[in-house]
Amino acid sequence: MATQNMQVLLANRPTGWVQESDFRIVETAIPKPGNGQVLVKSKYLSLDPYMRGRMNEAKSYAASVQIGDVMTGETVGEVIESKNPKFTAGDTVCSRSGWQQYAVSDGNDLRKVDPKLVPISTYLGVVGMPGVTAWVGLLDIGQPKSGETVAVAAASGAVGGVVGQLAKMKGARAVGVAGGKEKCDYVVKELGFDACVDHRSESFHGDLAAATPKGIDVYFENVGGKILDAMLARANPFARFPFCGMISDYNAVDRYGIKNLIAVVGNRIKIQGFIVSDHMERWPVALKELAEGVAAGKIKYRETITNGLENAPKAFIGLLKGENFGKQLVKLA
Amino acid sequence: MATQNMQVLLANRPTGWVQESDFRIVETAIPKPGNGQVLVKSKYLSLDPYMRGRMNEAKSYAASVQIGDVMTGETVGEVIESKNPKFTAGDTVCSRSGWQQYAVSDGNDLRKVDPKLVPISTYLGVVGMPGVTAWVGLLDIGQPKSGETVAVAAASGAVGGVVGQLAKMKGARAVGVAGGKEKCDYVVKELGFDACVDHRSESFHGDLAAATPKGIDVYFENVGGKILDAMLARANPFARFPFCGMISDYNAVDRYGIKNLIAVVGNRIKIQGFIVSDHMERWPVALKELAEGVAAGKIKYRETITNGLENAPKAFIGLLKGENFGKQLVKLA
Repeated sequence: MATQNMQVLLANRPTGWVQESDFRIVETAIPKPGNGQVLVKSKYLSLDPYMRGRMNEAKSYAASVQIGDVMTGETVGEVIESKNPKFTAGDTVCSRSGWQQYAVSDGNDLRKVDPKLVPISTYLGVVGMPGVTAWVGLLDIGQPKSGETVAVAAASGAVGGVVGQLAKMKGARAVGVAGGKEKCDYVVKELGFDACVDHRSESFHGDLAAATPKGIDVYFENVGGKILDAMLARANPFARFPFCGMISDYNAVDRYGIKNLIAVVGNRIKIQGFIVSDHMERWPVALKELAEGVAAGKIKYRETITNGLENAPKAFIGLLKGENFGKQLVKLA
Repeated sequence: MATQNMQVLLANRPTGWVQESDFRIVETAIPKPGNGQVLVKSKYLSLDPYMRGRMNEAKSYAASVQIGDVMTGETVGEVIESKNPKFTAGDTVCSRSGWQQYAVSDGNDLRKVDPKLVPISTYLGVVGMPGVTAWVGLLDIGQPKSGETVAVAAASGAVGGVVGQLAKMKGARAVGVAGGKEKCDYVVKELGFDACVDHRSESFHGDLAAATPKGIDVYFENVGGKILDAMLARANPFARFPFCGMISDYNAVDRYGIKNLIAVVGNRIKIQGFIVSDHMERWPVALKELAEGVAAGKIKYRETITNGLENAPKAFIGLLKGENFGKQLVKLA
């Protein structure tokens, strides 16, 4: 049995784009659980855009990762040893173990999941935080009605893909934005969106107008920049814009300036920022519906799986650049 | 008695800044009321930033003024002749007569007001549309709580001045932004704001930070541009930003780009555009409270009164440049 625990630490706070040298990989002894604790061996690590914010000193809604600390992150794995009566060796759990192979927990951050219901990796994606983010933002804040048009960027991603599929279930027109023809084809042909527009195309603005002939009633914001500006210009009266992220700004030293906010006044647009952890009361119903949808094959998803924790920094940088396709995971064991 | 009706027509659609040559002044015969109609002689014309939008071809929440038509606008005046049983000669009324001395109405756009309760000019300002805009935006959307900080730009203006005074009544800290020392002094010393920051000062950002030591919980938006960007950077978690206008953009050919929208996500800010005419059910209670406040001397205001309709175009251009001080009116008779 392994005795060493590989960990990825934050080595530097990046300015602008993250570099692999901002991380340091170390090996330490596998920790031993004390009374009331469990030892978890992680099988998959989730990589998510919000982690970029944790690398900054700047104040955010959550504490920064400190230099020299293990990078924060969700994993799904197996309880190896338990001194906590709520868990048994062999349990499959989601945890906040971070970027490392093993972690000890008092159980408060653990959530038991059923490995037979859906593939365990989906508990980090479509049946996890990204899926609930889509569910809360679209249904509770965006509130699409049948016949309305819902737009979402990063439409092939872990959040965007669910947004569009939920919009379709509500009878809305789903329009995605993604980078490149391959992703756009997937969004329409596999995920069932009505249209997908390539933001890298020179005809982006015209393509978006053609894809949203009745304008936009809900824009689920996770990218920002020129895409947001274009969506503001297409917004209908009383449009709702849930904001869950702005990945195009995360590494920007000089951010894109949004010029179409004036549309907010004339069209009485509501922009509402949200963080899914503020809505814990909605997680059970959201996770239940998402798991049922995945199990029944009604909610589709794609994963990019990088092998080996030592490759997590490179995969994370790729995620920030949009090089992944669907949910970005790292397979640890 | 006069037989001619001076009118200000829209002559051209402006690109960028409005010019006096975009208007044309004409004299026509005073119209005669038919059955069910009244003839109104206007005493004051209100000049408001929203009128800039009516000069554009671009779609807005209200119809454009057509080339050759009388410019749209609210007036307060007197019923001269009535063939409508609801009105009597001598009634003081607010009307949507536009930029002209006389107009015929079927009565639907008329609202009788009491000339003894408050000065009739205030029915175009603090006890009229601008006052209700402040009331609805601040109280219904902004919802300030005691101890919170409310910020508003154009703080010496018809809307901003009321926003700050209402905020104080709710127990909030009121912080204004205005152009120049004279206006800032007025906002603090006369209107009773806790602080006012000069946006023309080179130390604007530092001054705003000093004036909002606990951050900003409500920013009432009517200006946009760099002031909005600064307010986003000072926003507290769960801040509310009612948007009623964006005067800095109205004449801009190349608008200022907003760079701090990323704060909307982390701080769960709600931005809500609104138009006061969507909230007609709130007007009676708002007008009652505002009139009582003015009559009791609890709500203060200032007016810039330009004499003569022929000077309305110049006064309107000055309004868009912030040259007025308080509510901009034109005295017609």
